Amino acid sequence: MRALVYHGPGQISWDTVTDPAIEDPADAVVRVDATTVCGTDLHILRGDLPEVKPGTVLGHEAVGEVLNVGREVHSITPGDQVIVSSVSACGRCQFCRDSMFGQCGGGGGWILGNLINGTQAEFVRVPFADYSTRRRPGALALEDSVLLAEVLPTAYEVGVRNGHVGPGDTVVVVGAGPVGLAAVIIARIYSPRRIIAVDLSSPRLEAAHRLGADSAEVPGRLIADLADGPGADVVIEAAGDPEGFALCTRVVRPGGHIANIGTHGKPATLHLEALWRKNVTISTGQVDTSSTPWLLELVRYGRLPVSQLVTHTFGLDRMEDAYEVFARGTATGALKVVLHRE
Amino acid sequence: MRALVYHGPGQISWDTVTDPAIEDPADAVVRVDATTVCGTDLHILRGDLPEVKPGTVLGHEAVGEVLNVGREVHSITPGDQVIVSSVSACGRCQFCRDSMFGQCGGGGGWILGNLINGTQAEFVRVPFADYSTRRRPGALALEDSVLLAEVLPTAYEVGVRNGHVGPGDTVVVVGAGPVGLAAVIIARIYSPRRIIAVDLSSPRLEAAHRLGADSAEVPGRLIADLADGPGADVVIEAAGDPEGFALCTRVVRPGGHIANIGTHGKPATLHLEALWRKNVTISTGQVDTSSTPWLLELVRYGRLPVSQLVTHTFGLDRMEDAYEVFARGTATGALKVVLHRE
Repeated sequence: MRALVYHGPGQISWDTVTDPAIEDPADAVVRVDATTVCGTDLHILRGDLPEVKPGTVLGHEAVGEVLNVGREVHSITPGDQVIVSSVSACGRCQFCRDSMFGQCGGGGGWILGNLINGTQAEFVRVPFADYSTRRRPGALALEDSVLLAEVLPTAYEVGVRNGHVGPGDTVVVVGAGPVGLAAVIIARIYSPRRIIAVDLSSPRLEAAHRLGADSAEVPGRLIADLADGPGADVVIEAAGDPEGFALCTRVVRPGGHIANIGTHGKPATLHLEALWRKNVTISTGQVDTSSTPWLLELVRYGRLPVSQLVTHTFGLDRMEDAYEVFARGTATGALKVVLHRE
Repeated sequence: MRALVYHGPGQISWDTVTDPAIEDPADAVVRVDATTVCGTDLHILRGDLPEVKPGTVLGHEAVGEVLNVGREVHSITPGDQVIVSSVSACGRCQFCRDSMFGQCGGGGGWILGNLINGTQAEFVRVPFADYSTRRRPGALALEDSVLLAEVLPTAYEVGVRNGHVGPGDTVVVVGAGPVGLAAVIIARIYSPRRIIAVDLSSPRLEAAHRLGADSAEVPGRLIADLADGPGADVVIEAAGDPEGFALCTRVVRPGGHIANIGTHGKPATLHLEALWRKNVTISTGQVDTSSTPWLLELVRYGRLPVSQLVTHTFGLDRMEDAYEVFARGTATGALKVVLHRE
C-alpha cells in the first residue's frame, strides 16, 4: 500500500510499504476512507517527540471500513464503518477500567502514528480493536466523523471539561488552530459569558470569529481586554508552546482554571513566585476519547457546528501537499485538512 | 510596645514601636498571648517577598484577648479570646462572599506582617475584625490554638483538600516542615493507603515518623519506593523551592494531583514536554482560613494530634532567639516555635 512515512526530523514521504495485517487476535485492519493531519504531527516533524522512530507511518485519526478482524474482536465485523480513535486501549488495565484510555498501561494509549504505524495510509492495523474504534452512523459525513477521532474529544475532555467551563464564565482560548477552535465551539454549549480566542495569525483570528468566539485578539490586546476584571475563569492552552502557556498563567483569575491541551516539546517556566497564592488549578491531559459517543450525538443533532473546521480536502495520495497546506495554516487560515480515499 | 521589626533582607530586631490603635471602624486591637514564626517569614528575610517594606512588624498568626474594637465590629467584644487568622477579609467583596478570603479584593487577604504590621508584637491591630478572627474556646490550649491561625487551615485547604486526598490513596508530602507535617496529620483522617514524607533533613524525617507518616525518605529513595506502581495519587509540595516542585511532578501518577502549599520566591521549571499527556492537575493556593472552625472542632475532640508540631516555646521578648531556632529546624528538628506573653 501507499503511506506517509516519517524519515526523521523534517523528512516525510508518500511511500510504498507493506500492507498491514492482523498480528494479534485483538487487531482489526481498517481501510482508510478519510484521515487528517494533526498539529502533533508537525511536532513530530520538528523532532519534539523523539519516541517516533524513522520508518513509522504517521497519523492517528481515521474513518474507514473494517476489512478484517482477529478472533478476539467481538464488537465490530468486516464491512462495519468505524471511527478509529487516536487512542488505542487494551480495555483491561486499571487505567482503561477507569476510562482513562489515554493512560493505558496495557500497550495502548496514543500509539498510532507514534509507536506503531498510523492512519495516513491506505490501510491501518488497529490494535485492541474493540476498545479503539467507534461505530460511525452512515448519516454522519466523513469530514465530521474524522473530527471525532481526536480533535473534538481532545477539545472537550482536555480543554472544556478539565477547565470546568460553565455558564457565565469568561473563557480564553490561547491558540486558534483546529483544536483551539473546536474548544471554542464546544465551550459555547456551556453558555459562557464570553469566549476570547487568542492567536498571532490574522486568518486564524478571523476563523475564530466565524466559529463563534465573541472576540479574537492578539496576545497583547488580551491583557488590556481583561483589565476591567479579575481575569479569565478558564484559560485553555491550545498553542503548545512555552509562551502560550505563560500567557495563560498571566490572565487566569484567582481561583481560575488553566487547561493545557497543547502538545509541548519544551519545558515552560511556571511562575510559582506569582502563582503560589493565586488558587489556580492547572491541568494537563492526553485525550481518552471516552467522550466520542456523546460528541457524536451532539454533532449528529446539529449542536456542534464543526464542519467549518475542515477547510481543505485532498485525495489520499496528495498527503505531502496536505502537510504543506496544514503547516502554513497560520499564514493561510487553513484549519483541518481531510484526505479521502479516491 | 515591643515588636519584631523587619529592616530589609537578613535584618530583624526586637524594637520599641508605637502601640497599635483603632484606625478604621472595622478594626480590633488584640493583645497577643501567643504568636509564632512561619516559614514564609524566613522567605521574607531572604528577600523573596519584595512587597514587605522595611519597618514592617512581621508575623501573621496569633491568639489573644480583644482589647478594643471599632464601632462597626459586631461579632467580638473586648475581653473575648480570639484566634487572629493569617488572612484578613473585608467580608464584602465578591471573593469574600465566595469564601475565598485569601483572595480578598477589598483590602484584606494576607496583609498582616506583609503589607501592614503583624502579630510578632505585644499588640496587633486586626483589620476587618469580624471576618479576620475566630473565637477561641477556653478549653483549647494556646499552642493548639495558634496553629489554627494558619498552619492547619493551610495544610488542609491548600494541601489535603486541593490535592483531593481520599481513602486508599498514596500520598507524598514533599517537605516535612510544620506545614508539611500538619498535612501528614490531616491527610491521615482520610484513610490513605500510605503517606510518605520526603525531606533532606534527618531530624525532620524522624518527626514525620513520629507524627504518623508511614515512611519518611530522602528524595532519591522516594523514586525507588514508588517504582512498583504508577506513582503517587496525591503529591503535596510543602518545601517551597523549585527542586521540591520538580520532584512532585516526577512522582505523581497519571491522573494524579499536585497541591502546592509552598511559598515560592522563584519560578520553577514545568516539564510540559513530559506532563502534557499525563492528566495531571496542579493547584496553588493562598489559605482562606475558611476551614478554621471545622479544624478547631477536630482538634478539640482529639481527632488531630497536632500538639507535637510545637517543639519550642519562648517568652515574647525572645523573638530573635525563636527565629534562630526555627531557621535551624532542618538541622535540629525544631518545628513550630510558639512565643507566649510572659
